[in-house]
Amino acid sequence: MISPDHPRYRSLVTRERLAACAKKGVVAMEGLTAHGRGEAFDYLIGERTTESARRAEETAAAMLMTARHPVISVNGNTAALASREIAELQKASGALVEVNLFHRTEERVAMIEKILAAAGADVFSGEAERLLPLSHDRAWSRREGMFSADIVLVPLEDGDRCEALVGMGKQVIAIDLNPLSRTAQHATLTIVDEVTRALPEITRACAELSAEDRTRLLATSDNHYLLSEAIREITMRLAHALD
Amino acid sequence: MISPDHPRYRSLVTRERLAACAKKGVVAMEGLTAHGRGEAFDYLIGERTTESARRAEETAAAMLMTARHPVISVNGNTAALASREIAELQKASGALVEVNLFHRTEERVAMIEKILAAAGADVFSGEAERLLPLSHDRAWSRREGMFSADIVLVPLEDGDRCEALVGMGKQVIAIDLNPLSRTAQHATLTIVDEVTRALPEITRACAELSAEDRTRLLATSDNHYLLSEAIREITMRLAHALD
Repeated sequence: MISPDHPRYRSLVTRERLAACAKKGVVAMEGLTAHGRGEAFDYLIGERTTESARRAEETAAAMLMTARHPVISVNGNTAALASREIAELQKASGALVEVNLFHRTEERVAMIEKILAAAGADVFSGEAERLLPLSHDRAWSRREGMFSADIVLVPLEDGDRCEALVGMGKQVIAIDLNPLSRTAQHATLTIVDEVTRALPEITRACAELSAEDRTRLLATSDNHYLLSEAIREITMRLAHALD
Repeated sequence: MISPDHPRYRSLVTRERLAACAKKGVVAMEGLTAHGRGEAFDYLIGERTTESARRAEETAAAMLMTARHPVISVNGNTAALASREIAELQKASGALVEVNLFHRTEERVAMIEKILAAAGADVFSGEAERLLPLSHDRAWSRREGMFSADIVLVPLEDGDRCEALVGMGKQVIAIDLNPLSRTAQHATLTIVDEVTRALPEITRACAELSAEDRTRLLATSDNHYLLSEAIREITMRLAHALD
């Protein structure tokens, strides 16, 4: 039991929730470690949505709203932490929601699809094939799903799938707290923010942005600038850490 | 299965090892998340022992060698990652090795003591009592163990126990990759390094330092300087991250 007087109570409670999901098999054990890495970077950006992250979230909304075939790719951590937020973004953006796992079993896919459906998402399911140019299980996709997408939103992704998707000519929006990660560096657009803060911001922007706003955001989108702003935020925080 | 062509192969394999230990109950689920946070900070210091960390490791050796009653406190993550290194440091320093867990059950304590013993450590065991001024299970200690120690080495510790020990008048040596953590800030001496790199360096220094070296290291020990150096390393790395 975690005592509420523990100074990191909130963070510990989230960890416990993920741990409980890991025991059920929804979250991969390795997903707990990935969450920890995210926690560290969230701490470094001050556990808040920075100005540059908000700009990235609005740009993500503009991309999703103008896409031909947008897909939101969901893994175990995202389902455990943000199913409701995924369902709401789907409603606002009209994107397909598809489950895609690094540690893939049919059982885990079914469990995660069920969690998403219970949260109100309309999950695109059905027969998967090895369609992406990757050596591991994340190569599995559905022909009418991510494989055909022009824009893919990948919250909480690890490494090389982002590159593979970009290599296939798709635009990739990543939500990644580590601005130095390979995903962050290779994505078309990187949102350096925590997933349960980022998704509602994208949803809000989907509803609020005018056509002119969207055009302006897409015309001025600059991922290198967004990443360097995230790094600047971290550096500033570190500079004052021992004051 | 992780493919060896994955660019983060080493890190993923370590994570798999911890995940396997979590399935057996040696590592707490929450310990996997804590490991992830460490990974993030290790990445930021360049996954190497910095000059200031080496200085801290030598100072730790000097503290352990001159202590009246030094104790090494071991948790699940430390046992999973570095049992052998703990056993070797015990041989070099003569410190007591005691298991102390946040997520404490008698079964986990016994499992971890067995792993340490198998790695060659002489584990101080026996009846534990609620001796430390903390509201959670880490309050449990042994009267002749950590409770009586003058110097305690706590690798991979979370938050508030370090403060409690310092409040009891003990000197605490922490191994913590996050120079901003409460443990790092409150410890008498903080080693900002990865545990399997740090422990052998302390062991080596226990054997090699002369009495003069020890006196000089203890006289010039300055934790604020060590922490600011660790932060400077991270900041420098971040400054060049997008080059």
